[in-house]
Amino acid sequence: MDVIRVDDPADPRLADYTRLRDVNLRRHLEVEHGLFMAEGDKVIRRAATAGYIPRSFLLTERRARALDDVVAGSGAPLYVVDEETAERLVGFDLHRGALAAFHRKPLPAPAEVLEGARSIVVLEDLVDHTNVGAIFRSAAGLGVDAVVLAPRCADPLYRRSVKVSMGSVFTLPHVRLDDWYGGPDALRGAGFHLMALTPGRNSVPLRRAMAELDPGAKVGLMLGSEGDGLSPRWLERADARVHIPMAARDVDSLNVTAAAAVACYELTLRGGQPR
Amino acid sequence: MDVIRVDDPADPRLADYTRLRDVNLRRHLEVEHGLFMAEGDKVIRRAATAGYIPRSFLLTERRARALDDVVAGSGAPLYVVDEETAERLVGFDLHRGALAAFHRKPLPAPAEVLEGARSIVVLEDLVDHTNVGAIFRSAAGLGVDAVVLAPRCADPLYRRSVKVSMGSVFTLPHVRLDDWYGGPDALRGAGFHLMALTPGRNSVPLRRAMAELDPGAKVGLMLGSEGDGLSPRWLERADARVHIPMAARDVDSLNVTAAAAVACYELTLRGGQPR
Repeated sequence: MDVIRVDDPADPRLADYTRLRDVNLRRHLEVEHGLFMAEGDKVIRRAATAGYIPRSFLLTERRARALDDVVAGSGAPLYVVDEETAERLVGFDLHRGALAAFHRKPLPAPAEVLEGARSIVVLEDLVDHTNVGAIFRSAAGLGVDAVVLAPRCADPLYRRSVKVSMGSVFTLPHVRLDDWYGGPDALRGAGFHLMALTPGRNSVPLRRAMAELDPGAKVGLMLGSEGDGLSPRWLERADARVHIPMAARDVDSLNVTAAAAVACYELTLRGGQPR
Repeated sequence: MDVIRVDDPADPRLADYTRLRDVNLRRHLEVEHGLFMAEGDKVIRRAATAGYIPRSFLLTERRARALDDVVAGSGAPLYVVDEETAERLVGFDLHRGALAAFHRKPLPAPAEVLEGARSIVVLEDLVDHTNVGAIFRSAAGLGVDAVVLAPRCADPLYRRSVKVSMGSVFTLPHVRLDDWYGGPDALRGAGFHLMALTPGRNSVPLRRAMAELDPGAKVGLMLGSEGDGLSPRWLERADARVHIPMAARDVDSLNVTAAAAVACYELTLRGGQPR
């Protein structure tokens, strides 16, 4: 096992861990170098278990042995730093934390993932990494088979998404569309009945829409961005528009992660009888 | 209308706005002075509409007129500062933002709120203000009548809660129990059938539990803390334990805000047929 003590936060071997809170910097760095970050023992273990290849691990001295089981046999170096070096490097107090950099894998082609899927979630232009991670956790927990991302949807492998998802982003397959305009039609072509979640009028209550589905239907649940919801184009190309009935006069919709949880729950039960 | 330009972030008239990101400082300051902060035009308007009395408003120069309709007639001063003063005062870039300090109102006695309520959410020891705010938004939107807080649950009127709730904390009534140990029994004494949400074994699937309720039942949905869930004491004193069925092997539960949204949704529909 390759344990390396480093004192200089500018050491190039630690470059993967630079300024983790600088979203713009990190987006470029991670995409260009084909890496992502995992944070916390549990999430790091899940990434490794899911078959991602570690590039390196970063721990503070007092927790230097915390990941021995993962580090051993990974072939990747373990960098151990004092707390001050850690903070200057990553930009926050690592304290009892643990970090690892992993290699990304090429995303599967949509057809490969969609063929066996019965229920999918389709995210249009969500910009918030926390929301994307939370939706992965709910979708995975509630039994959705895959997530399809529009070209501009935020990266599920960004550190915040990974963390909030509790590692669900590693196990719930996801694919990215390369064509926004034709995206819904491509999914319909793959056999999916597209249900667009929208607070707008001219939509059917979620439970009724689910109960009226053909039992064997392949369903794609479409969710739009945090502020504006789905684009007119995607709304127009959906097979059905559905809403979660709101009771309060002063609340016009749930936030997108709450709406996603409710809709994935109904999608799993398909509006069915209590079980 | 009382418009006052202030250049010194240490000016005592701005003391309500000191270091808004310092959670420990703010907790003391806000409770001792009986105030809370609202952030953003929409949320500030909602606080005023809900009958809260403003203490003051804080805007940057370029947006000095943004709240004229609320400020006028409120009797409270509007402080206008430049962006640098704002940042040194509150601790972040106020930019296009707006802040207001409001007086708290005494919370109603539990009996007053519980008497007319048919569906309530009962939060045990949630520590995260964002989660509390998100649960208020979902509960309000889905038609829950009130929220009951255990003695140690995080403050719904803390700035982050208020913001994430989109102001639902002003309109959805809430009360705080003064006795944690006897809390569930007090609610049962007030006629509520208590359903404890828990991922644990020995619990009934949520939809089935809801479908088996008496149609006229008053229901209290109990939710526990982010990490550990409900305490053994509260679980033991509930009338029923319910869970949201999980499909994935590696996800043992939803996060508490997703679980709350799903459970409030079922609570509103009472496991009923599609509508």
